[in-house]
Amino acid sequence: MKETPMVQPQSKTLSRRRALLGGGAALTGAAALATPAIAQGAPRTIRMATSWPAGLGGLADSAARVAEGINAASSGRLNVEIYWAGSLVPPLAVHDAASAGEIEMYHSVDYYFQAKHRGFNFFTTVPLGLTAVEQAAWLKYGGGQELWDELNAVYGVKAMPIGGTGVQMGGWFNKEIKSVADFEGLTMRMPGLGGQVIARMGANAVVLPGGGIVEALFEGTIDATEWVGPYNDLQFGFQKLLSTYIYPGFHEPGTTASLGMNLDFWNSLSDVDREVIQMISDAEVTAHTADYYGNNGLALVQLLAENGVQPTRLPEDVWNELARVSFEVAASVAEDDDMGRRIFESYDAYRTLIGSAGPISQSEYLAKRGAQDLFAEV
Amino acid sequence: MKETPMVQPQSKTLSRRRALLGGGAALTGAAALATPAIAQGAPRTIRMATSWPAGLGGLADSAARVAEGINAASSGRLNVEIYWAGSLVPPLAVHDAASAGEIEMYHSVDYYFQAKHRGFNFFTTVPLGLTAVEQAAWLKYGGGQELWDELNAVYGVKAMPIGGTGVQMGGWFNKEIKSVADFEGLTMRMPGLGGQVIARMGANAVVLPGGGIVEALFEGTIDATEWVGPYNDLQFGFQKLLSTYIYPGFHEPGTTASLGMNLDFWNSLSDVDREVIQMISDAEVTAHTADYYGNNGLALVQLLAENGVQPTRLPEDVWNELARVSFEVAASVAEDDDMGRRIFESYDAYRTLIGSAGPISQSEYLAKRGAQDLFAEV
Repeated sequence: MKETPMVQPQSKTLSRRRALLGGGAALTGAAALATPAIAQGAPRTIRMATSWPAGLGGLADSAARVAEGINAASSGRLNVEIYWAGSLVPPLAVHDAASAGEIEMYHSVDYYFQAKHRGFNFFTTVPLGLTAVEQAAWLKYGGGQELWDELNAVYGVKAMPIGGTGVQMGGWFNKEIKSVADFEGLTMRMPGLGGQVIARMGANAVVLPGGGIVEALFEGTIDATEWVGPYNDLQFGFQKLLSTYIYPGFHEPGTTASLGMNLDFWNSLSDVDREVIQMISDAEVTAHTADYYGNNGLALVQLLAENGVQPTRLPEDVWNELARVSFEVAASVAEDDDMGRRIFESYDAYRTLIGSAGPISQSEYLAKRGAQDLFAEV
Repeated sequence: MKETPMVQPQSKTLSRRRALLGGGAALTGAAALATPAIAQGAPRTIRMATSWPAGLGGLADSAARVAEGINAASSGRLNVEIYWAGSLVPPLAVHDAASAGEIEMYHSVDYYFQAKHRGFNFFTTVPLGLTAVEQAAWLKYGGGQELWDELNAVYGVKAMPIGGTGVQMGGWFNKEIKSVADFEGLTMRMPGLGGQVIARMGANAVVLPGGGIVEALFEGTIDATEWVGPYNDLQFGFQKLLSTYIYPGFHEPGTTASLGMNLDFWNSLSDVDREVIQMISDAEVTAHTADYYGNNGLALVQLLAENGVQPTRLPEDVWNELARVSFEVAASVAEDDDMGRRIFESYDAYRTLIGSAGPISQSEYLAKRGAQDLFAEV
């Protein structure tokens, strides 16, 4: 998959704009004492391949922050070098590359790897599933991380969450979606379980890395697309290419990016360095999620106010059918194998738990807040 | 304020259950090289006073995690000792104590200090304001942290966010709230701007630390209370003491706890140690917020299913009046002084920005997800 002209991939060694832990020479020697197995003064190189083109707001910023954070917090023992999408391995092949030991680390979303096992979807996002904070809660406290580790161990990979990109909009289309029948024959870029949902409704779901979407639209090989949300949608300029922006999105309510590593590499790290990476990842969940919540709002206002976009609400019966098929598709993963069954059951139980509490606290509050005049002004 | 029997305060030196960065003897010497200003082998003691009694789920766990994290990540240079509510300073006086240098650090919520300046409310939560993730976004990327630093500098304090406790329910009452007039003469525990809202509606708003609420209910000095949300409400047993649990809450949509420090102490730290504390705080936003989102859901289900609690929806006209007065009270802070005006204007602009995007993405999604049959089963 070639990259579009707007976002050129480039091999770029990370510049240390900020030494997170004060880094630098003074720490290098000190740190070496703490981890005698690592040769003093010889930082271990970590090749991090991303699925994102350089310059992509949010996700590429996150990769840079994580790399800088690890480099600085490890006091010079570790040196993460970023390879943007396609510059070392194809953007959707980073899990393969980490599994084979061709790279040590990736910054991606695990649902790109669902061809290996559909359980991977649950560690990124599920149609009609958890939001970013709820997903973080399931992974950290609901047994999700343990299941992810178990699934990934088969492939020799270890991954952890590094934050969510917010609730997706419904996507960009070249026509209005007025009925369920409008999905028939539609070719749409949509990865993950969401793609399987629209496929069951007669669409042709295509998986493309971000860098390939604009080109595919220019070439006319797809009719519709979703991407990450308003922040990145605006950056890619979909408002200039497609007439209809639909809401709400059913397919990606809490998309969670992942920091994956070759498992042998992970196991070869000292306890200290594993804790450094874990802590940087935890901190990144905060930074990354906050980044998207703020910038998605900003971008949406800009799309409406400056770009004249008028989002169209999905008709109730179309939403209901998407929701029905979403539950069906997610549940079908339980039939794949024992691993799939255990992942689905854990996720589903947590979704029911949080979802049953939500209506009378968070969503009720948000709906009522949204109804106030204050927010009608934009 | 005496503590209740159910949650005894205790002076407790933190046990290092887990060495976050591998800690221990090997690191102490190494770390000393990195910060030669600190005497080798002599960790600097940080007295952290909390507003929470020991054993309080969520907030006390957070204080323990933060203390352990700092101790371990600083490789033995820093040693945080926790003093639970009232054991060193009164729970609501921790800001005074940090300001005076009697303690180095506190774990609290800054709206407890609004008697000094009402601007403090905006760094905890605002009625009809931002949710936890939105609040994190405003602080990190919307100019909030800079304003907080400016406000706190007057008192010789530096504070940072360490996560949210989720969207509050409407609180516990000894009678149903059927009309606006039901607030007349009601004595209710409610701190922050929310307390000022119900005061304008004729209630007597009382500020009590958590540890004093149950006692006040037993003594009959309050008729109603809110606390942190279902997780902590269940732990305190309000369902046994008050008949009515109201939703949704208008007053605390994104309560954010704060890690505060004496400013001279903060400035005396090395760059490395300041970065350690900042990184631990960022990581704690993730852990703390996820903890509450998960446990509030669990507790709410338990209150409904096992304790027979039937939450009552606030009548529409009562909600609308609470909302109207909430905007009025928040805006009135702008009239206090220039600092108040700048804090309000920054927050209000961000709330409008995020709030205007929310209705067609997150809240629309949550409302629709909540309407699915899946969540009707509990």
